[in-house]
Amino acid sequence: MQTKPLPCDLLVTAGILATQNEARDILRQAALAVTGGHIAAVGSAADLVRAFAPAETLDLSGCLVLPGLVNTHTHAAMTLFRGLCDDAPLAVWLTEHIWPAEAKLTSEAVRAGTELACAEMLASGTTCFLDAYLYVDAIADAVDTAGLRAVLCQGVFDIANANFKTTDAALASASRLADRLAGHDRLRPAIFPHAVYTCSAETLARCADFARDRGLLLSTHAAETARENDDCQKTNGRRVIPYLKDLGLLGPQTLLAHGVALDAADIETVAVSGACVAHCPKSNMKLASGIAPVQALRAAGVTVGLGTDGAASNNALNLFSEMNVAALLQKVATGDPTALGAGAALDMATRDGAAALGWPELGRLTVGGPADLCALDLSRPQLCPAFDPVSDAVYAASGGEVVCTMVAGKVLYRDGEFTGFDYPELRRRMCAMTRSLKRRS
Amino acid sequence: MQTKPLPCDLLVTAGILATQNEARDILRQAALAVTGGHIAAVGSAADLVRAFAPAETLDLSGCLVLPGLVNTHTHAAMTLFRGLCDDAPLAVWLTEHIWPAEAKLTSEAVRAGTELACAEMLASGTTCFLDAYLYVDAIADAVDTAGLRAVLCQGVFDIANANFKTTDAALASASRLADRLAGHDRLRPAIFPHAVYTCSAETLARCADFARDRGLLLSTHAAETARENDDCQKTNGRRVIPYLKDLGLLGPQTLLAHGVALDAADIETVAVSGACVAHCPKSNMKLASGIAPVQALRAAGVTVGLGTDGAASNNALNLFSEMNVAALLQKVATGDPTALGAGAALDMATRDGAAALGWPELGRLTVGGPADLCALDLSRPQLCPAFDPVSDAVYAASGGEVVCTMVAGKVLYRDGEFTGFDYPELRRRMCAMTRSLKRRS
Repeated sequence: MQTKPLPCDLLVTAGILATQNEARDILRQAALAVTGGHIAAVGSAADLVRAFAPAETLDLSGCLVLPGLVNTHTHAAMTLFRGLCDDAPLAVWLTEHIWPAEAKLTSEAVRAGTELACAEMLASGTTCFLDAYLYVDAIADAVDTAGLRAVLCQGVFDIANANFKTTDAALASASRLADRLAGHDRLRPAIFPHAVYTCSAETLARCADFARDRGLLLSTHAAETARENDDCQKTNGRRVIPYLKDLGLLGPQTLLAHGVALDAADIETVAVSGACVAHCPKSNMKLASGIAPVQALRAAGVTVGLGTDGAASNNALNLFSEMNVAALLQKVATGDPTALGAGAALDMATRDGAAALGWPELGRLTVGGPADLCALDLSRPQLCPAFDPVSDAVYAASGGEVVCTMVAGKVLYRDGEFTGFDYPELRRRMCAMTRSLKRRS
Repeated sequence: MQTKPLPCDLLVTAGILATQNEARDILRQAALAVTGGHIAAVGSAADLVRAFAPAETLDLSGCLVLPGLVNTHTHAAMTLFRGLCDDAPLAVWLTEHIWPAEAKLTSEAVRAGTELACAEMLASGTTCFLDAYLYVDAIADAVDTAGLRAVLCQGVFDIANANFKTTDAALASASRLADRLAGHDRLRPAIFPHAVYTCSAETLARCADFARDRGLLLSTHAAETARENDDCQKTNGRRVIPYLKDLGLLGPQTLLAHGVALDAADIETVAVSGACVAHCPKSNMKLASGIAPVQALRAAGVTVGLGTDGAASNNALNLFSEMNVAALLQKVATGDPTALGAGAALDMATRDGAAALGWPELGRLTVGGPADLCALDLSRPQLCPAFDPVSDAVYAASGGEVVCTMVAGKVLYRDGEFTGFDYPELRRRMCAMTRSLKRRS
């Protein structure tokens, strides 16, 4: 039977396509048809070339195509502080370097730092991230320009900062943010009470009420270190997880960042609540916070995504190295080389991270879903001989193999160039700004 | 005073130059003059441009230039098996996948696998490596063509393999290798008894005698796992390190690969002997072998280099990720964020690794030394704002930023192209070969 080819906006051919669908199908000589920013069809290149009459084509036939990666925890604008202070004790790093530098932040600096972070994420295959930082309006402007998807959190803490003098002001801003982003197709609002040690019980509970009232995600730093539990025990008579539970912060729309110092009861509490975890292995290692029990969390049914944390404690926003380190770290921590295999690590960086953000149609390449993808150049030596594309993505790739990144059907990065914004101009602006930040600090 | 400009082969300008000299000087707007493959001068670009009349120039003024990195432990040709089997218990991985595949190896396959490894190492800034594998003549041919430096080891074990049926034959080959490479400027011979569990006491002692007689480096896998010590204790009445010492294998020209399961007495024994250690953090993590006590080794005065191990247990030959993981792993293992800082990690990948190979003029960019370097594109987002180039190299770079790699004054990699050999042809040959290997295995 001959049928007339269907129109579509774009036909993308892929050498290897890791769909990350339910069956984790890997297709070779594959193609994707894209219309209106969504995937109209996925299948063999031969079939789709016959079936569609595309307005444009994109040849990624020499590439391994993956869903765009999802970064579930970062403070994007902290690219401003990359390399400002490393290898220092946490208290010195925070009180002598990061907090003084943050006290001088402006919304202009936050915007530039966020744009730089967007560039870095696009160049390493990330298409969606959760961000929590100061000056959320400047962040929204930056991400909107750069073209990525993001869950943008209003940060809330009871300590006055460069952005807000009072908790009320931060909560009012959260409300304005939710109004501003209502109906936006790429940006979603959320709320981020900073941590149990920077927010009062009342503030935490107000944030939980706000999230529930507005139907938004709530994320917070939780149990990043053993000390956080000890302090919470002393101050509040409970460890962090039961304390958050009692205040009403744990539920299916809760994303706990770090989750390092969790005992068996904590894991059970998190699992029963339906809350998810953003695992940030490199940040946890660099700050010597500890090793999150990812295997145990996953075994208990908790959805665990991956996060880079900010560039001041990582220092890269590259989910390929995060996948790699996450898998290696669980193996050495558990003494079991079968722990957290390549498939699990890729799931965490794609579909599980998307689910953790409450955005489950991301992190997979399936019909009807958004056309968010990244493509790795299969001709690079480290991706040869390509026995197993998932293993190669997790264990062999560095992220430097990414040659194309697309969000909602639009190419935002191709062969070293950013198509959404003026990167050379941004870099000049950023460099001038950070030089002046350093001088003043 | 006006003087006539001095002739030189090449003048390289660098945006930032991390010399890795004794003082670890970092120069900005710097330059290197190169003559006869060696560095004739290092200094400010302004001074050197005046002082030299170069035959050629190389503009790396937008780059961070580092000494070429030194990989102290790999099995290069195992790129053939990258992704063949991952996330499996060690015994399954080795006996059901790697050993059967190795039994079918040919010298032609080893040559192709080694060439691919050379390409991967060049593209991620490595200019020198220690290799231990089968068919060392094919390896020497491959590395000589590719243009890198290497310490090429004759592997010795008492188990018959595809290459040698007897230990005598392997030792005779070691002797021929030493003759063949005598006086070679880039390739040095060495001997590699595989491990205490694959070589008899007599074989180990014969290898030590051979290395001493010929004045060569001896390297061996040592204390990679706790089980190796337990087995050695049962079989030989001692842990691995005292056993090697008693057999005469420990000395300043000994390089112990892995050194994971070392107690305080082992560390003291290694330190007193002058032996060095090749730390392979990613391989040790992936195989769940454990965490080497790198901080304690360095504190005891042991020289520790970095190694990638083979691509079947890593799966990349990229020293940037190895530096990153080495630093992060010591921090989380010791609970101390100041452990193994960026400077120490860069030392391990450069001058300490070079010293561990008995080639101390490598791994630094100093007058009279070889012109081996790599250059990272400073315009990449992850290297902005460039507060601290050493931190950026260790914590922010992925290796994908490398745009130029030079050995002995000769550019071997530039902007994705390999100048020393036909990479597209190699890739085709490699892919055909590994497909057939997989079919047969």
